[in-house]
Amino acid sequence: MALPSPSYTITLRVQVPASQQATSTVVTAVADTGAAVTGVDVAHSTPEGLVVDLTCDTVDTQHSQRVVDRLEALEGVHVLKWSDSTFLLHLGGKIEIALKTPIKTRRDLSRAYTPGVARVCTAIADNPDDARRLTIKRNTVAVVTDGTAVLGLGDIGPAAALPVMEGKAALFKQFADVDAWPVCLDTTDTEQIISIVKAIAPVYGGVNLEDISAPRCFEIEARLRAELDIPVFHDDQHGTAIVVLAALVNALKVTHKKIGDVRVVVSGVGAAGNAIIRLLRAQGAEHIIAYGRTGALHPGTLDDDPHRNWIAEHTNPERFDGTLTEALAGADVFIGVSAGDILTGADVATMADDAIVFALANPTPEVDPVAAAEHAAVVATGRSDHPNQINNVLAFPGLFRGLLDAGATEITDELMRVAALAIAGVVADDELNSAFIIPGVFDHRVAEAVAGAVRAVAEADR
Amino acid sequence: MALPSPSYTITLRVQVPASQQATSTVVTAVADTGAAVTGVDVAHSTPEGLVVDLTCDTVDTQHSQRVVDRLEALEGVHVLKWSDSTFLLHLGGKIEIALKTPIKTRRDLSRAYTPGVARVCTAIADNPDDARRLTIKRNTVAVVTDGTAVLGLGDIGPAAALPVMEGKAALFKQFADVDAWPVCLDTTDTEQIISIVKAIAPVYGGVNLEDISAPRCFEIEARLRAELDIPVFHDDQHGTAIVVLAALVNALKVTHKKIGDVRVVVSGVGAAGNAIIRLLRAQGAEHIIAYGRTGALHPGTLDDDPHRNWIAEHTNPERFDGTLTEALAGADVFIGVSAGDILTGADVATMADDAIVFALANPTPEVDPVAAAEHAAVVATGRSDHPNQINNVLAFPGLFRGLLDAGATEITDELMRVAALAIAGVVADDELNSAFIIPGVFDHRVAEAVAGAVRAVAEADR
Repeated sequence: MALPSPSYTITLRVQVPASQQATSTVVTAVADTGAAVTGVDVAHSTPEGLVVDLTCDTVDTQHSQRVVDRLEALEGVHVLKWSDSTFLLHLGGKIEIALKTPIKTRRDLSRAYTPGVARVCTAIADNPDDARRLTIKRNTVAVVTDGTAVLGLGDIGPAAALPVMEGKAALFKQFADVDAWPVCLDTTDTEQIISIVKAIAPVYGGVNLEDISAPRCFEIEARLRAELDIPVFHDDQHGTAIVVLAALVNALKVTHKKIGDVRVVVSGVGAAGNAIIRLLRAQGAEHIIAYGRTGALHPGTLDDDPHRNWIAEHTNPERFDGTLTEALAGADVFIGVSAGDILTGADVATMADDAIVFALANPTPEVDPVAAAEHAAVVATGRSDHPNQINNVLAFPGLFRGLLDAGATEITDELMRVAALAIAGVVADDELNSAFIIPGVFDHRVAEAVAGAVRAVAEADR
Repeated sequence: MALPSPSYTITLRVQVPASQQATSTVVTAVADTGAAVTGVDVAHSTPEGLVVDLTCDTVDTQHSQRVVDRLEALEGVHVLKWSDSTFLLHLGGKIEIALKTPIKTRRDLSRAYTPGVARVCTAIADNPDDARRLTIKRNTVAVVTDGTAVLGLGDIGPAAALPVMEGKAALFKQFADVDAWPVCLDTTDTEQIISIVKAIAPVYGGVNLEDISAPRCFEIEARLRAELDIPVFHDDQHGTAIVVLAALVNALKVTHKKIGDVRVVVSGVGAAGNAIIRLLRAQGAEHIIAYGRTGALHPGTLDDDPHRNWIAEHTNPERFDGTLTEALAGADVFIGVSAGDILTGADVATMADDAIVFALANPTPEVDPVAAAEHAAVVATGRSDHPNQINNVLAFPGLFRGLLDAGATEITDELMRVAALAIAGVVADDELNSAFIIPGVFDHRVAEAVAGAVRAVAEADR
């Protein structure tokens, strides 16, 4: 059953009678609908009555409306207005520009702008490497999308994708002091996206591709990596892969298994699945079977998609071609980046002892995590209301912090692998258990650890 | 003679002997080079000597070096290190991203990012107009350049142009709370620039084109105005034109002349000259002669440049084809947006009584302003070290503030004309005189007045 959540918090301004019981009657009425009341403040008081601001978490928009209706039905109670906290927070956007030093006097102006700025421009024209020293390039990342694969919403377009990209920029700043800027492109043409990102690159020290649908995301990332001299990272692929590897490394510690020995079944061969399989292989995984919509991939299932073919050529050499459920029998690890409710607890029960299940489809996991936990030793999801949340925010802020600090020009598999190990390493041995294989998203040690590990490898690579 | 300026401020850390006279000897030595000492602070003191930080304004880089050499030549004095304030201010860039509300808890995260943000995305997908309400689009302007005509430096490229665009963004924020972002494009292809700006437009409520060379700037602006639903403004053209018109309106008040009556000579028919002539005509100027490098334009000088032809067809109907100096004889107004030192005081002496001279070439005006002032009633330049500085910063912040507040979709000549009148109007009748025809750049009334006037017209236009 869905629970009240802070993404559906509403604040109601309510007129109530001036009686001892009136406020508690209101709170009880709201709680009776299943909402979680988080605060009641008196806004005004007169001899005739009170105006109170009541804040509560609801389950969804319909539930919010039921709260309003329930209050209106009470004797002497009237809802003057109500507002949705999530929308209130988004009014006017979530980020803004700030000046590092104010421009308040002629002296400030003549340094930050004309005529002084001309000398800085000339210095960069004479020595292009100075751009990283004398401009925002040193700390700035483009968050680039075309709005074709936004969250679980799909192709909603660049304007509707902007709140996500602003949120991403906010997380970059909050978690790692990286200045990220939303670039929402009103085109889905692969070549045009590549040429635009190349053209805007002088301002940026890195590019984070975001929510671009497969298979275009592969081509865009590969070409930009080849043609730009700054690191390019598709978060939906590699961010997920890094956090999955981090979680798996710790889950294997909990279950006392080795990555080279375990049998891994991956459901989903899109952007995330592809990157996960590559990174697991980089860490030494040898027994992987991957499932797309048409079944198990193997060297006999080649088609005209080079990214699927890469998987087919590098997994399942035994050419197992049973169903996903059949493949699970005796498997040690299941990693789902596909669709909700495709497995049952009974399927998990057929896995090897001390099985590991990462059911990452959002909002509905591949298997109910409670049912899975009856049979598996470790269960992780993409959700925040279960233990072991696989959340990309553990990876991208620290990763780019390290890349920018090192002045890195590219991202390698080795860099991503050390980022994963850094995340895993934040969980101390005496903290590690089946319900805590991955640090929380607000653990400030994570970004520092990732940045440090990435910086060390990136500097050694230069 | 060039004077010490704050764009060449240096700070020197100097070791001096521990004597009563040592510090004053150092200050005197620095002042003797012609530098203006603005501060001396003791950093450390020991029985053997002092370490002092001395800050002074110099004329240029060579002068800074002379200061260092002079100090090193003093007995017992040693310059430990020295730094240039303008470069120090630019380290790491001048702007950064700030969060409007921090993301510190799971509750914050679930509103600003997943899962709550999905509802905001859906709202915009369902109603695209909500983008202005729920994202940064409402307050955000792209500052777009290709780095081909940066300040007086010319084609220095997009990376070297970034310090200017950052400065512009800083001014937008400081003067009008507009969030502006630098877009420095690594292409000079007109069609590609147009297509890129169209593609990135979903994030922005307006576009400020900057430092793009003529004639490409005309085509880029015209096409973007036609093809985008947000206002597009080439500051080098129209920003200059607005402030010139503002200054001229007040100069005509000082000299008791009417814009419809005066004879105006314009030197320079590039981006700025073109826009100035258009805006003067919109305000009622009827007698204009414009000079390019090849002489006076008139209806008989048509060639294959449509922007020059527009001027030729709309000025100088008498087909006067004498030299610039000959045209000045008896003229009321000279406006130069061309090159330095092309006129003398003697040329200005041939103008009509109570002549008005705007010599805006930078850094060297068309005529020495001191010499011009001997013969003209009002003289203005682009420089900050003479009265009446024509500075675009008087126009663009308030203009975009008004456009964004109105949700404007285009910029009209009428909008620019009222912006100019708003700037002129900030100078009260009892403040107005020949040395004060235009407000100072730090007068906070300017952006407010411009924004208010622009907003009123833009809202009426919708």
